[in-house]
Amino acid sequence: MAKLYVVGMGPGDEKSLTAQARAAIEDAQVLCGYTVYVDLLRPLFPGKACHATGMRGELDRCRWALEQAEAGRTVALVCSGDAGVYGMASPVLELATEYPGAEIEIIPGLTAALTGAALLGAPLGHDFCVISLSDLLTPWERIEQRLRRAAQGDFVICLYNPASRHRPEHLRRACDVLLEQLSGETVCGLACSIGRKGERWQVLTLRELRDAQADMFTTVFVGSTQTRRAGDRMLTPRGYA
Amino acid sequence: MAKLYVVGMGPGDEKSLTAQARAAIEDAQVLCGYTVYVDLLRPLFPGKACHATGMRGELDRCRWALEQAEAGRTVALVCSGDAGVYGMASPVLELATEYPGAEIEIIPGLTAALTGAALLGAPLGHDFCVISLSDLLTPWERIEQRLRRAAQGDFVICLYNPASRHRPEHLRRACDVLLEQLSGETVCGLACSIGRKGERWQVLTLRELRDAQADMFTTVFVGSTQTRRAGDRMLTPRGYA
Repeated sequence: MAKLYVVGMGPGDEKSLTAQARAAIEDAQVLCGYTVYVDLLRPLFPGKACHATGMRGELDRCRWALEQAEAGRTVALVCSGDAGVYGMASPVLELATEYPGAEIEIIPGLTAALTGAALLGAPLGHDFCVISLSDLLTPWERIEQRLRRAAQGDFVICLYNPASRHRPEHLRRACDVLLEQLSGETVCGLACSIGRKGERWQVLTLRELRDAQADMFTTVFVGSTQTRRAGDRMLTPRGYA
Repeated sequence: MAKLYVVGMGPGDEKSLTAQARAAIEDAQVLCGYTVYVDLLRPLFPGKACHATGMRGELDRCRWALEQAEAGRTVALVCSGDAGVYGMASPVLELATEYPGAEIEIIPGLTAALTGAALLGAPLGHDFCVISLSDLLTPWERIEQRLRRAAQGDFVICLYNPASRHRPEHLRRACDVLLEQLSGETVCGLACSIGRKGERWQVLTLRELRDAQADMFTTVFVGSTQTRRAGDRMLTPRGYA
């Protein structure tokens, strides 16, 4: 039976691919995904047929992949990071009822919370939240509400999509919400272009984070009250002992 | 220079290893970790010297690994799942100031939130929290507080360590806290022994979850108000559109 693999590719470098993700892409007759991600994978799978589409074409891409699978082709639909965390697994499964002939397998991958944390040290050593600052599909009020609850719960907070060209001020607005409850000295971290050209990371305070530059390739970490610096890194102890 | 790799090995099956984790273990002169994890990896790295220690020996294991690295050996300290999420990266970095000669590299891996989600469908399609129900190093009041804030924030909630022999009732107690605010019909999921012998998963309601069997090899997902069933799976849509 033909299959649709929804594959988490991690940041896009060869070393972060799992054996299972590599095997799925090798098995697939066609690799499909957002242009930037497909272009990262092309050199790793020379000769593989590719179907790349632009941003905001997510639902069309899912339908195309489901149609191909239903027509008997094996397809790998690739997602940056994990397949499930703000990834394509969710829209594919939403649409799947319309394509009963397509068998679907979700293949997890290293999401930016994990790869960014590994660069910064160990910010996720205790309970944490992941929140996207994109208000494209989520009302901003809902995002603010989650930021407040996360701060009240003393979670470590990992922020995805902290800014883009169309919403450069989202990170600053989020920091202002967090500063209602958290100290300006809260230990924070930034990881940019993880696993890609220009990779860099930085440990800084929440006050400094408010004025930091971030883009759509940045992942942000806001520490809990337990998070501290360890040398040039950031760590959250495993316990309160 | 000798190196200490802190390696997230994922669930322990070969297919979930990243290329980087595999390379680090191959590079290491000795593999060290909790007995259960080392035993999972032995067949994948035949002939590799291993140093396995029992549960609760975490700090001794970190010190042993740091001492070895400082003495000039290359060591891979392995963690189930990710290196940072309730893993060894945090205690290693805490102790590292005492071992200035040891170079440390953190290598991320697939944590159970990601591998469990891939089995269940796409529960983590939107903002989520990860909370451990172990009160070994965290006061139970703190855990309850986080559960309440996560429910108030309408996060998807992923629970680690939902139960063990010494605390069989923690999952039930956590569900009771969540049921103060969430509907008993909230869509939930269980994933057990992910990537190992006896792997199974189940979608159920929060009311049913309260009475479900869980052990230390179970990962639990509690949906947000947006999470729903899709066939036999569980999915959280990416947006509120």
